[in-house]
Amino acid sequence: MTFSVTILGSSSALPTSKRFPSAHVLNVHERLFLIDCGEGTQIQLRRFKLPMNRINHIFLTHSHGDHVLGIFGLISTFNLLGRKSDLHVYGVADFEDIFYKNIDYFTDQLSFKVIYHVVDPFKVETIYSDKHVVVTTLPLRHRVPTVGYLLREAPRPLNIRKELIAKYNLSLAEIVKIKNGSDYTLNNGTVIPNAELTYISSLPRSYAYCSDTLYSERLVGLVKNVDLLYHEATFLHSDLRLARLTGHSTAQQAATVALKAGVGKLLIGHFSSRYKNEKDLQREAQEIFPATEVVNDGLTFSVEPKSTY
Amino acid sequence: MTFSVTILGSSSALPTSKRFPSAHVLNVHERLFLIDCGEGTQIQLRRFKLPMNRINHIFLTHSHGDHVLGIFGLISTFNLLGRKSDLHVYGVADFEDIFYKNIDYFTDQLSFKVIYHVVDPFKVETIYSDKHVVVTTLPLRHRVPTVGYLLREAPRPLNIRKELIAKYNLSLAEIVKIKNGSDYTLNNGTVIPNAELTYISSLPRSYAYCSDTLYSERLVGLVKNVDLLYHEATFLHSDLRLARLTGHSTAQQAATVALKAGVGKLLIGHFSSRYKNEKDLQREAQEIFPATEVVNDGLTFSVEPKSTY
Repeated sequence: MTFSVTILGSSSALPTSKRFPSAHVLNVHERLFLIDCGEGTQIQLRRFKLPMNRINHIFLTHSHGDHVLGIFGLISTFNLLGRKSDLHVYGVADFEDIFYKNIDYFTDQLSFKVIYHVVDPFKVETIYSDKHVVVTTLPLRHRVPTVGYLLREAPRPLNIRKELIAKYNLSLAEIVKIKNGSDYTLNNGTVIPNAELTYISSLPRSYAYCSDTLYSERLVGLVKNVDLLYHEATFLHSDLRLARLTGHSTAQQAATVALKAGVGKLLIGHFSSRYKNEKDLQREAQEIFPATEVVNDGLTFSVEPKSTY
Repeated sequence: MTFSVTILGSSSALPTSKRFPSAHVLNVHERLFLIDCGEGTQIQLRRFKLPMNRINHIFLTHSHGDHVLGIFGLISTFNLLGRKSDLHVYGVADFEDIFYKNIDYFTDQLSFKVIYHVVDPFKVETIYSDKHVVVTTLPLRHRVPTVGYLLREAPRPLNIRKELIAKYNLSLAEIVKIKNGSDYTLNNGTVIPNAELTYISSLPRSYAYCSDTLYSERLVGLVKNVDLLYHEATFLHSDLRLARLTGHSTAQQAATVALKAGVGKLLIGHFSSRYKNEKDLQREAQEIFPATEVVNDGLTFSVEPKSTY
């Protein structure tokens, strides 16, 4: 089952010729979830051949232009393509008014519903779940209300050990009960615990997106044991003062979050355009957390169980 | 003296992986003038290494998203770069309110002034001029109020024939008068007409941008003898019905405007994404007007006197 993230935009506030503003797209079992929607997101979706009609949920972290200015064009394009299915957009309260004003202005007779869900940037809440994925908010510390997102695969149904079906001559009804977690009682009264009857084919995988934010100890607790963590690293640690001033993190701080949280792998991006060599940021992070990779537009990272990284 | 246009975006409403939404940038004697500002304009300016700080004037044709949605990000970037000089934006009245609302929302403490000039889409008016260029509006026929722009080099100062300065022993004051167009009267009363005393080093060159529009006879008159004409060609003529329905032109119609107006060269673009082969559109136009070229993002066309095309 696919669980991967494709980087559509990886610049900080100033895009460069190689890095578009922020946007990540998650493929969870062939359904796409967009996180942030910087200018040019629709162009990147086309360039990287990602079927945009599979996006039904867009999660916005905050209202700064480099994270949201692509959403009006994207929705306009959905409309021109005759989209029918509802589009759910999640974001902070402050963005709702200007969001709807722009949608009203730039689209004629929307062919589908756009539903804006206000998320509380100070609470940890499950804001969306279906049978494939559970999405939880991660309060971040930026200059404006900002929220990260944790996407975790929904727990998989239990698998029954096939050889036991014959051994105990289980009926369909009994199988369903066991798959739902029940123990099984033999005719002689012996109870076979569920754990002996079933197995889990794989553990739910998880991906966390944390941009933009100051270093946050609270966040460490919230992304504990996440398989794949994206954490912004706008600055080198030698520019810590700037990071603090602008509400951002250094590569060293991103790596410290990854280390303390014991994640499987760390992705860093959102580099200030002042740095010409991203290797410096990578090196700084890897000194603390070796399993760090730099993101670039167009790269896809598979989310794997942390033990396999 | 440079006079050229670089294509930043050449798609119609739906961008493709190769074509960004509409934006052209004019280099007139090393000062840049932007016409339309589709999503991603700031990224294209960086990609094609055009110094965005030289843009002081942005001319918007109409309020559809594929022509304007890049302006909020561009202005935001100007602000982050600490721009000081005024930015003049020209567009239809209807766009002014949402324009300022977005600028207010997406920028903190603007470091420069943004002045929105309302243009009348039904009148032919000179809306801007300096010593290098004169900009005139071209009323177009689209679904919403839409205006094209004609950029013509300002008339060059007259050059005095050097050999006559000695011959008539002209004083500095007399030279200035002659350069300003006066005739010269000899001591014996003979009048030497200005045309014999001066010459024009080169004729002012002109570029017209016409998108989006239905075929317009009035426009033919307005772009008469223009050196370089960009005219949208969203459809093939076999799809004329669609062109009429959506307020656009066919390649054949664009070429007919060029032919009737006797322009030097025609550029076509803004093709519907339904056409996989742009050669079909080029061929259709060239059958009527051979000096037709298809625009692509990143191409630069020098504006030359029409006689040289």
